[in-house]
Amino acid sequence: MSEAVADIGLIGLAVMGQNLILNMNDKGFTVCAYNRTTSKVDDFLANEAKGTNVVGAHSVDELISKLKKPRRIILLVKAGPAVDAFIDQLAPKLEKGDIIIDGGNSHYPDSIRRCKALEEKGLLFVGSGVSGGEEGARNGPSLMPGGSAAAWPHIKEIFQKTAAQAYDEPCCDWVGETGSGHYVKMVHNGIEYGDMQLIAEAYDILKRGLGLSEDEIAAIFDKWNKGVLDSFLIDITANILKFKDEDGVAMVNKILDSAGQKGTGKWTAVAALDAGMPVTLIGEAVFARCLSSIKGERERASKVLSGPQKEPFRGDKQQFIDDLEQALYASKLISYTQGFLLMRETAKEMNWNLNYGAIARMWRGGCIIKSVFLNDISNAYKNTKVESLLFDDFFNKAIHTAQPGWRRVIAQAVLWGVPTPAFSTALAFFDGYRSEIVPANIIQAQRDYFGAHTFKVLPGKENDKLKPGVDIHINWTGRGGNVSASTYNA
Amino acid sequence: MSEAVADIGLIGLAVMGQNLILNMNDKGFTVCAYNRTTSKVDDFLANEAKGTNVVGAHSVDELISKLKKPRRIILLVKAGPAVDAFIDQLAPKLEKGDIIIDGGNSHYPDSIRRCKALEEKGLLFVGSGVSGGEEGARNGPSLMPGGSAAAWPHIKEIFQKTAAQAYDEPCCDWVGETGSGHYVKMVHNGIEYGDMQLIAEAYDILKRGLGLSEDEIAAIFDKWNKGVLDSFLIDITANILKFKDEDGVAMVNKILDSAGQKGTGKWTAVAALDAGMPVTLIGEAVFARCLSSIKGERERASKVLSGPQKEPFRGDKQQFIDDLEQALYASKLISYTQGFLLMRETAKEMNWNLNYGAIARMWRGGCIIKSVFLNDISNAYKNTKVESLLFDDFFNKAIHTAQPGWRRVIAQAVLWGVPTPAFSTALAFFDGYRSEIVPANIIQAQRDYFGAHTFKVLPGKENDKLKPGVDIHINWTGRGGNVSASTYNA
Repeated sequence: MSEAVADIGLIGLAVMGQNLILNMNDKGFTVCAYNRTTSKVDDFLANEAKGTNVVGAHSVDELISKLKKPRRIILLVKAGPAVDAFIDQLAPKLEKGDIIIDGGNSHYPDSIRRCKALEEKGLLFVGSGVSGGEEGARNGPSLMPGGSAAAWPHIKEIFQKTAAQAYDEPCCDWVGETGSGHYVKMVHNGIEYGDMQLIAEAYDILKRGLGLSEDEIAAIFDKWNKGVLDSFLIDITANILKFKDEDGVAMVNKILDSAGQKGTGKWTAVAALDAGMPVTLIGEAVFARCLSSIKGERERASKVLSGPQKEPFRGDKQQFIDDLEQALYASKLISYTQGFLLMRETAKEMNWNLNYGAIARMWRGGCIIKSVFLNDISNAYKNTKVESLLFDDFFNKAIHTAQPGWRRVIAQAVLWGVPTPAFSTALAFFDGYRSEIVPANIIQAQRDYFGAHTFKVLPGKENDKLKPGVDIHINWTGRGGNVSASTYNA
Repeated sequence: MSEAVADIGLIGLAVMGQNLILNMNDKGFTVCAYNRTTSKVDDFLANEAKGTNVVGAHSVDELISKLKKPRRIILLVKAGPAVDAFIDQLAPKLEKGDIIIDGGNSHYPDSIRRCKALEEKGLLFVGSGVSGGEEGARNGPSLMPGGSAAAWPHIKEIFQKTAAQAYDEPCCDWVGETGSGHYVKMVHNGIEYGDMQLIAEAYDILKRGLGLSEDEIAAIFDKWNKGVLDSFLIDITANILKFKDEDGVAMVNKILDSAGQKGTGKWTAVAALDAGMPVTLIGEAVFARCLSSIKGERERASKVLSGPQKEPFRGDKQQFIDDLEQALYASKLISYTQGFLLMRETAKEMNWNLNYGAIARMWRGGCIIKSVFLNDISNAYKNTKVESLLFDDFFNKAIHTAQPGWRRVIAQAVLWGVPTPAFSTALAFFDGYRSEIVPANIIQAQRDYFGAHTFKVLPGKENDKLKPGVDIHINWTGRGGNVSASTYNA
């Protein structure tokens, strides 16, 4: 029987797992490392973890025996069956109150299921988003734990010390019930897809629209990184644009324009469709990656489809670049507005008590979307429960300031033939969102016309036949019956 | 024991079922009608079906006994458990080669499952899309049957005679394997969402942009209905706009602008995300309905968010209206291009042999999206297997003709502040699709920078370190390792 020396155990010694262990070790915690292929444990102890307090285990039993109680075990293994397999292996050997933490990119319905199953066995479950990639794991990630609330006091210190610190606060707080940690991480990733797409569109406008070089564009991003757009992604984009291959050519111009995805952006878009919430920017960002990936078809299309006659830009270039900064900022604000809208509606449906200010604080550092902007969001959610970011004074002013340039940029890109799916959908959302009346009355009339789907009367327009709150069907054609549709769905 | 007199049985006497029976009766087929609540059978025979050849059944056994062999039974019941319940009830009583047809709006994975299960029992299954609403069912719907190929010779005559006829051909042909009939119907419905949203946006531009009245807009739609946009939906929209309430006010202005949905548009968007295909227009159409449905939040937003200063339109109004017709046409063409792209990729994945020309022919009449346009699509797919509608000479010319007006309309709407999510996403797709290079290289560089996700080299840019086809990771920062990401997903 080994001595219970370790504060926490970690299973899964890929780069992320190794780095997280070294990080926790640096913060003064004793970690016990285990991996199914146990030679990895020895390699790790003999190399990366040499001279640290990290201890190793060569079996699940040994791992458990080395942990202080309540036992805390983080899984950092591939999302999916591997997580269930380890949980099944661990659960019978653990005691009431022990805590299993899934730090992988699990899909939130799995975390909901696992939380329920483990709680029924008297164990505690935490599904925690971990963002920041390899560097974040090593130096301080953003951690988004949710699940069994009773687990939080036992992991709070380790989690908050291991997490990145931003604005003198840890980028980690308790998210909420059951699968909410992984849900919030999923939305984070969706927003990340959106941010990346917006940057790609800005780059495209500067390159194909204004005809600037990579170095010129890098200088613009460097400048933007000192203003409202100050963020990790803008910063690394500037660095990327400056990175030259050995022959002096910008490396980005040698990279295949076919974007990969691991699915979390898609999950967010599907979750939005399921929740019936218009999270259009993430949707367009995911679809833009899809379009990029049909490279061969695009190549063939480029041979037979031409754009508009390209006319040289005759306006004030610097003004246009400033407009573009505002367009990027406004579009980003819409994307986050949509993301928080989605979390709000899902929380309602799932009965989660989410703290939106805390979520923004967790994202201020450590993760891919870290930015000054997120500090402003955490401020917006600080005092009151604002219904929407656009209702907050700071952002309300910001979007009105950005609006003229935002519109000019999109109109120009449309005339140039430079695609701006994310910029455009953001503006369309803004214009729809601020419309008391949208043309959905036409859609309701059509649905009632061809499918007897009924409609409701617009408040203020009621009369004897158009009663408030009632499903109304009109015999538009004078033919057909007055029966509403039942089995037919359209 | 009753005499086997009926050519086909139909279960489910809601409006759609009743109308389809009367339609089949008109075409000379003897139909046996059954409903779980059997009083509906008697009511139907005593009223709507009085004087016809329709016979009734008061039990599943009676229904089966009245059918000629191989027995053909259409289910027109609510999609979901009710379909399985009837299949479970019918299957044990049927003989090898008998045919169960699901004519409801079932989700295609269910049809794939049911087809497999029934074929294992020696029975045949057909999942058939039925489009056209109540009127279509009564006078000739579009029918999209797929499933057990052996069933087709036994139902072909009934189906093709019952279907709408357009251009002297039936709006019904064999779609393909397993769940392909319902898949194609789902895409049809998704396209219908797109068409309706495009019309709503055109209406909105005419109303809020140009400031036209409903009567003036109706006249424009009437005119469009004589040109390239000639279609059922344009036609009924003109009728809807002319429809006045008793006080003389256009009825559309009394209809709540909050669009409902039954889920098939959402299914299409999710299927597109799952297939990794950029079906952006349907996605935006679904999200536009979502945005319309948060009416209360929009109302509150309208109080604190203002648009641009509205300036009176100074251009040539008629030219702008003609531009709008072209914008609607071009956007619609993009939507169908995306829809057929989705079917093509799914067919590949599912091993379905879909006949795209036949699909377009089925949609030319009977259904909600029937149009002259679909005849042009069926022509495009007639001779060769064109990769994309935009590669077909007719449509290639059409989109280039439409392009200048399409861009002018969107640029104007952007400056006006009238939301055009579907028009805009269509144009963004066009501009991305015809781009040999899109800015996804930036996204790949970012992913490799923060997550070691690797990239591939752009063909033509290979060198000793950038080898063709290989996953390349660059140490962008000079820090960190050369290990590619394994467990971390972003």
